[in-house]
Amino acid sequence: MSLPASDLNKKADGLTTMQLGGVLPETAEVIDGHLHIGGVDMVTLAKEQGTALYVYDEQMIRHNMERYLIAFRKNYPNADVLYASKAFLNMAILNIANELGMCLDVSGGGELAMALAAKFPAERIFVHGNNKTPLELEEAISAGAGRIVVDSLEELRRISEIAGKLGKTQDIYMRITPGVEADTHAYICTGCEDSKFGFTLRDDYAFACIKQAIDTPNVNLAGLHCHIGSQIFALESFKEAAFVMVNMIARVRDEFGCIIKELDLGGGLGVAYMQPDRPSTIEDFAKVTCDAVREACEKHGLELPRLMVEPGRSLVANAGVTLYTVGTIKDLKGVRKFVAIDGGMSDNIRTALYDSEYEPVIANKADRPRTEIVTLCGKHCESGDAVVLDGSLQEAEVEDIVCVFGTGAYCYTMASNYNGQPRPGIVFVKDGKANLVTRRETYADLMSRDIVYAMDQFRDKFQKNIC
Amino acid sequence: MSLPASDLNKKADGLTTMQLGGVLPETAEVIDGHLHIGGVDMVTLAKEQGTALYVYDEQMIRHNMERYLIAFRKNYPNADVLYASKAFLNMAILNIANELGMCLDVSGGGELAMALAAKFPAERIFVHGNNKTPLELEEAISAGAGRIVVDSLEELRRISEIAGKLGKTQDIYMRITPGVEADTHAYICTGCEDSKFGFTLRDDYAFACIKQAIDTPNVNLAGLHCHIGSQIFALESFKEAAFVMVNMIARVRDEFGCIIKELDLGGGLGVAYMQPDRPSTIEDFAKVTCDAVREACEKHGLELPRLMVEPGRSLVANAGVTLYTVGTIKDLKGVRKFVAIDGGMSDNIRTALYDSEYEPVIANKADRPRTEIVTLCGKHCESGDAVVLDGSLQEAEVEDIVCVFGTGAYCYTMASNYNGQPRPGIVFVKDGKANLVTRRETYADLMSRDIVYAMDQFRDKFQKNIC
Repeated sequence: MSLPASDLNKKADGLTTMQLGGVLPETAEVIDGHLHIGGVDMVTLAKEQGTALYVYDEQMIRHNMERYLIAFRKNYPNADVLYASKAFLNMAILNIANELGMCLDVSGGGELAMALAAKFPAERIFVHGNNKTPLELEEAISAGAGRIVVDSLEELRRISEIAGKLGKTQDIYMRITPGVEADTHAYICTGCEDSKFGFTLRDDYAFACIKQAIDTPNVNLAGLHCHIGSQIFALESFKEAAFVMVNMIARVRDEFGCIIKELDLGGGLGVAYMQPDRPSTIEDFAKVTCDAVREACEKHGLELPRLMVEPGRSLVANAGVTLYTVGTIKDLKGVRKFVAIDGGMSDNIRTALYDSEYEPVIANKADRPRTEIVTLCGKHCESGDAVVLDGSLQEAEVEDIVCVFGTGAYCYTMASNYNGQPRPGIVFVKDGKANLVTRRETYADLMSRDIVYAMDQFRDKFQKNIC
Repeated sequence: MSLPASDLNKKADGLTTMQLGGVLPETAEVIDGHLHIGGVDMVTLAKEQGTALYVYDEQMIRHNMERYLIAFRKNYPNADVLYASKAFLNMAILNIANELGMCLDVSGGGELAMALAAKFPAERIFVHGNNKTPLELEEAISAGAGRIVVDSLEELRRISEIAGKLGKTQDIYMRITPGVEADTHAYICTGCEDSKFGFTLRDDYAFACIKQAIDTPNVNLAGLHCHIGSQIFALESFKEAAFVMVNMIARVRDEFGCIIKELDLGGGLGVAYMQPDRPSTIEDFAKVTCDAVREACEKHGLELPRLMVEPGRSLVANAGVTLYTVGTIKDLKGVRKFVAIDGGMSDNIRTALYDSEYEPVIANKADRPRTEIVTLCGKHCESGDAVVLDGSLQEAEVEDIVCVFGTGAYCYTMASNYNGQPRPGIVFVKDGKANLVTRRETYADLMSRDIVYAMDQFRDKFQKNIC
């Protein structure tokens, strides 16, 4: 994979770190030219912990979770907020989400196992996924997961069978494809039928499946679920989805006499990856969503259902940054300037995968204006390995510490060991303290699952013990 | 990320498994409707080991390595073949490559550490990478790595400094960007200046840097290296690169009086991912390459240098397959048919990352024709999560075992734990035996690096011990 050609006419934006605004973690500040987050000097932290390193502003994570909880509960009598753990998951954030009274969205057995290991209350865990395996369903039902979001009739049958075997009644949601397709700045009310997820409204298929769920033993149809997309700036699309879903609840009441008491509108609120981005606030998102549900319920004479949303990215993306050290610089005049960092597509696949954009600064030159256009490339043996293509940056030198903002979501959870690269450690910073919450991988970790290697280790140990 | 729209006019190819030809592992056969590889029934193996599962035809890996070694040594007096470990790396393949007398291409400290742990002789290890860290360089030089492929003057300086400190003289190659750009079916002699790798020929920059390497203490300029690309079908491009590189060697002799004795032409030979693909054979690649080097050397009156090539994909891609179990099937009439498997972008990111194409079959219906066009989607919470888009497949049912061919390169090494998905185990099959060489990740592995979790575990254990 090659890089797209560089735009040689692009001009650096001349901004200093603090002018990047909504892209920054909320405790970001510049002191004596050094970027600080959570009261911790990122340059010092990088030297102490080594790079690449994921750093999270713990106060911002807590604040974002609280903002969601407050905004929804202020606007609505019975609302819950689920953290979509696929965005970023380790024990530390599970403990914070639990402490603050969030619910949790997990998909698959691994996320569930981590949540249970962190003693996250099972009844506040909602299990998602378009293709949960029978084993994963059994794990979820056994553990007492609060809700399982059903994605197909095959799965409905499996849940009923497993719950019956375990002597349980499982609360379920049905995932509906509401026919609302959202992108960053607009929404379209057609399309999005082409999805592996959920039950389509077309030909009343979803409606027939809801009837089947009502009639299925060992499950209780507690609610309906939808998810219209990711990184959405247009609140209108959430409003539209709310209308479609409440209509569905009203129709289920009218035709089947069944009152659906819970409504989960999924996630998708966008964040600022680039300085000009102006996503909606959590508070506006909450108001629009709650108002839409209330308005639709009044129209249909429905009691307000318990309301859920599932933010992931909007809780953690801007709270997280990645620190790197500059290793080499290649200025190919008239072609491109490469600044090579000690990470890349192994710790952040989003640039290569989604053409994602990020704002970088040099943490030890954070008060200087960004005067150059550079490509921040990684250390992997692949031409397409870059974190930032043609981005503004301060003039870089070898051993500078680069901070890439907005990497708190979908970077760690999608990280790989490509080129034998150990995955970075994760540090939570708060009130001047840096806490290593996930240690960096070691070379030994990379081969810990290899049987031949394990045998060698065992043999060495064995021989040592008997000699 | 959404999927591209489905081509509803596409017709299934009607092929049975054995008609897929060059895509298959060489020991593939169909017995009583079941796909066998290495004499092992893939359906039975999938049930025993669980899915998703990577399976490698060990005989084919060995055979491919031997074909490379024989073809180059038959055509050339002094040739070596390096296995490019980034394509697929674990202890098992390291042991095989070592046993057969291959050399090894590693990039970064992790791959080096694994090679050393497998007792791969350090002098046969070549260290690559556009941005090796100072620590990685020190690890390589300390270990006695045979050659370090220098990618920048910054790195040349570092190697000299570290080697000096350790009292060593390090053999190095200089990586040249030869100005030959190859794609699958053609080559162009311009372009490809836009690369993070190596020293460009433009303005004689590479030439000046070679002079600098000659004059640098603690290093010995043993050879030159180039790498023109990946998945290349057009042998002409390798020939062209050989000419450029030998010209360079002649010019270094003429102007600096220095004889460069080794030439590493990198990797890049293409493989068949899809049934119609017709890549060149290893034997033709060897002949064209060796002939080109010989012809160029004769023209310049040069002694034949030691010749190296660095195959990765062409050794392992077609030897590897991935087995999955079908979980759910959604036939959205007039839109798309989704067959959902118990893996996806976590074990194979290449479809989403490179729009890669693969040939799938149902292992338990391997003798039946592929009569349907389906999208083989994964279990991840992402619309773009698919392994095969609009591919031919036998009619699928839940619990069928799907085998995706050609997944032996760049799938495991790029695998992630997205959605908490444990990475699959790896089985080598040969002569009717299945050897688990890398165990599947466990849920416990997913949280083993989390400090909070580790502390909880420790506390539980501690309390148990003192109670």
